[in-house]
Amino acid sequence: MRTMHRRDFVQSAALGALAVTPLGTLHGHRRQGDWKSLRVNGARVNRHLADLSRYGRNPDGGVSRVAYSDADIAGREFAVRLMRAAELEVRIDPVGNIIGTRAGTLPAAKPILFGSHIDSVPHGGNYDGDLGSLSAIEAAHTLAEAGYRNRHPLEVVIWCDEESGLTGSRGYVGDISREELHEPGRDGVPLAEKIARIGGDPERLAAARHEPGSVAAYLELHVEQGNILHEQGVQIGVVEGIVGIHHYDVTIEGFANHAGTTPMNRRRNAMLTAAELVLAVDRIVKAMPGRHVGTVGRLLVEPGAPNVVPGRVRLTVELRDLRTATIEALWEQISAELGELAHEHDTPATWERQHTNDPALSDPGIRAVIAQAAEALDLSFMHMPSGAGHDAQTLAAICPIGMIFVPAVDGISHSPKEFTSAEDVEHGANVLLQSVLRLDQA
Amino acid sequence: MRTMHRRDFVQSAALGALAVTPLGTLHGHRRQGDWKSLRVNGARVNRHLADLSRYGRNPDGGVSRVAYSDADIAGREFAVRLMRAAELEVRIDPVGNIIGTRAGTLPAAKPILFGSHIDSVPHGGNYDGDLGSLSAIEAAHTLAEAGYRNRHPLEVVIWCDEESGLTGSRGYVGDISREELHEPGRDGVPLAEKIARIGGDPERLAAARHEPGSVAAYLELHVEQGNILHEQGVQIGVVEGIVGIHHYDVTIEGFANHAGTTPMNRRRNAMLTAAELVLAVDRIVKAMPGRHVGTVGRLLVEPGAPNVVPGRVRLTVELRDLRTATIEALWEQISAELGELAHEHDTPATWERQHTNDPALSDPGIRAVIAQAAEALDLSFMHMPSGAGHDAQTLAAICPIGMIFVPAVDGISHSPKEFTSAEDVEHGANVLLQSVLRLDQA
Repeated sequence: MRTMHRRDFVQSAALGALAVTPLGTLHGHRRQGDWKSLRVNGARVNRHLADLSRYGRNPDGGVSRVAYSDADIAGREFAVRLMRAAELEVRIDPVGNIIGTRAGTLPAAKPILFGSHIDSVPHGGNYDGDLGSLSAIEAAHTLAEAGYRNRHPLEVVIWCDEESGLTGSRGYVGDISREELHEPGRDGVPLAEKIARIGGDPERLAAARHEPGSVAAYLELHVEQGNILHEQGVQIGVVEGIVGIHHYDVTIEGFANHAGTTPMNRRRNAMLTAAELVLAVDRIVKAMPGRHVGTVGRLLVEPGAPNVVPGRVRLTVELRDLRTATIEALWEQISAELGELAHEHDTPATWERQHTNDPALSDPGIRAVIAQAAEALDLSFMHMPSGAGHDAQTLAAICPIGMIFVPAVDGISHSPKEFTSAEDVEHGANVLLQSVLRLDQA
Repeated sequence: MRTMHRRDFVQSAALGALAVTPLGTLHGHRRQGDWKSLRVNGARVNRHLADLSRYGRNPDGGVSRVAYSDADIAGREFAVRLMRAAELEVRIDPVGNIIGTRAGTLPAAKPILFGSHIDSVPHGGNYDGDLGSLSAIEAAHTLAEAGYRNRHPLEVVIWCDEESGLTGSRGYVGDISREELHEPGRDGVPLAEKIARIGGDPERLAAARHEPGSVAAYLELHVEQGNILHEQGVQIGVVEGIVGIHHYDVTIEGFANHAGTTPMNRRRNAMLTAAELVLAVDRIVKAMPGRHVGTVGRLLVEPGAPNVVPGRVRLTVELRDLRTATIEALWEQISAELGELAHEHDTPATWERQHTNDPALSDPGIRAVIAQAAEALDLSFMHMPSGAGHDAQTLAAICPIGMIFVPAVDGISHSPKEFTSAEDVEHGANVLLQSVLRLDQA
């Protein structure tokens, strides 16, 4: 449930992606010690999760660690200490992202980037973002303890301000405009001021930008935020991509009349058209085979009095799928039906595409690596889309991406009740570690 | 569009109603001068309407003459001056109603009451209430000028505070509780304080009460507030009664889930049930022959975000008809369908009857008198229900009632655009005058 910003999508496959090869090939061609047996310290990463949950903790559980708040700043300082303990070379980039580097041995090798975020929604939980961030640090810590000599530079990243709009990752790929930086935000404060508050350098924002092809890969571990893994009892989700989102605002104009004095056959009732549209969205979305979803989540009736025939209804239609073509085909059917309904009820309707997020597919090679890592760890896994947005979708503009999901109990997220078992945390961190190692060995 | 209060309905026919006889009988049995040729001064009543519209006038037209406001008080003083010019004996009753009496010649005859209100909704128009009030005064003025000697006492009444809940007429029939009088209203001010402000005497409220059978008849002229007369080009509406209203609050409980991560077949979407119910209300209401109406005017979706599956929908169903049995039969069908829909979508639903206004039928004899008056004036007329509420519905508890409607252009009411032509104003006032005379002669 983040606000997402429109951006141009760049096909990750076209970006000189890391040449990931199937596991069979990896095996023999380069070995360095017994890297396949490396495992994270599960107790430590779970302890760190508990420690981090103290920053911004709410009396009823969970945290409010909203980006740029004092709690966020304190949490970031805690994360920096963990990074240093993991022998990472820490810097804050101009956007305010925290990046901890473990230098590589291969000259000119592109860095492997992995991490997540630690800011939360108001009254959020202790796993969304935190899990991926602390597991990334834990993976680095494990490598440091093992004295592993990585070929690629490894960069652990904690993106700033994921929840309000993927700010850190957008700055990293050069997708923050001067207007966005300097104009007052919804809270009245310009982004530049907020970035400076957390140690970024907004005047040097351009220096934070990474060119397409400059990063070997981006990996992110995250809680699913849905109930598929938990319900099906599967331990690991191999994310096929982050769905695209089209959000349409629909306005239906009827005529607001006295409900007592306007006979049924003299009404131009905007609510009737809206009700039929709600059902049409559900019917059309369900009729097309696939895992796409369609939702009318907001619906406002005007004037909204019990004794007035609805004169105007404004509603949102949100469509999500991994393929833009699917979304467009759905909207074509829905908007055609809207036109018919508007005509039938004599309630003119208009619509506007409010914003779109293009789908960001994960790299097939990285998907294979994650699946192999899970298999080697004897964990059950399944391929699945991410219905929620993540920093990984921004990174797809400059490098191949991959995401690892672990179960969220009952699919609950953005809630103090968000929960992932200590065992699943450890499994996820190990899949992340082993995926990074496989990419490094490739 | 007023708030109406529950009250016990007393069948007007059972109240020792005025023995109204058909016109044919009236003719010969008592004559006093040439009363049938009496006509109001159309220019004068229209001028008075324009004069009254200055009190609380809004820059964009129309008035905000909300009950108990300074504009209302000034408008009331203006009305009192008009009443005195019409040779009426004016008093303010303990509720704050303005009553102007023209004494009758027949000892112990019950008074004939006629009038309306002059308070308005915020940003209301110049005809709702004003028309009936000033026409009643005009009728009295005409009788004074003609030296007509009425048998019954004639009482011209301007009810206080019609718009927020028929306060004046409810006080007149003894339907205001001590709690209502002394507890702070929605604006924080107790009703007693407001009544005192306009010259009423809240401590003596009980003295304002009239017993059933103590009034010969109540007549009210009003703009239709609907578009039936205007659309059909009919000059006079003979009101069959004021419809009963049942208002139901429905709550549908789904589960609010992330719209991106919750597959279509895992949703418990309260909005789907609500949309089907909206259509069911329309279908069921239209399927039963009659002039009843049914409206879902308010519908609130929670949490109401584009990216969240609706977890709860609260909506209102309002049903109106002249027969309570019709309303109950409709609700039986609607609530049965709600139960099925709730089951089908796994979204438990509950409902509560929030308040009811029982229908108030007009007296058949008075309806005949109004029709005969219109016919004698060579005006077209039709019988019709009043879909809106009026003080007359309260009066039905103590006496036979009748209402006269005149066209509202395009059916617009509670708006600065409310308009009735000067000709229709004059026609309505003449029908009122002639109906009062026929009742007096009966």
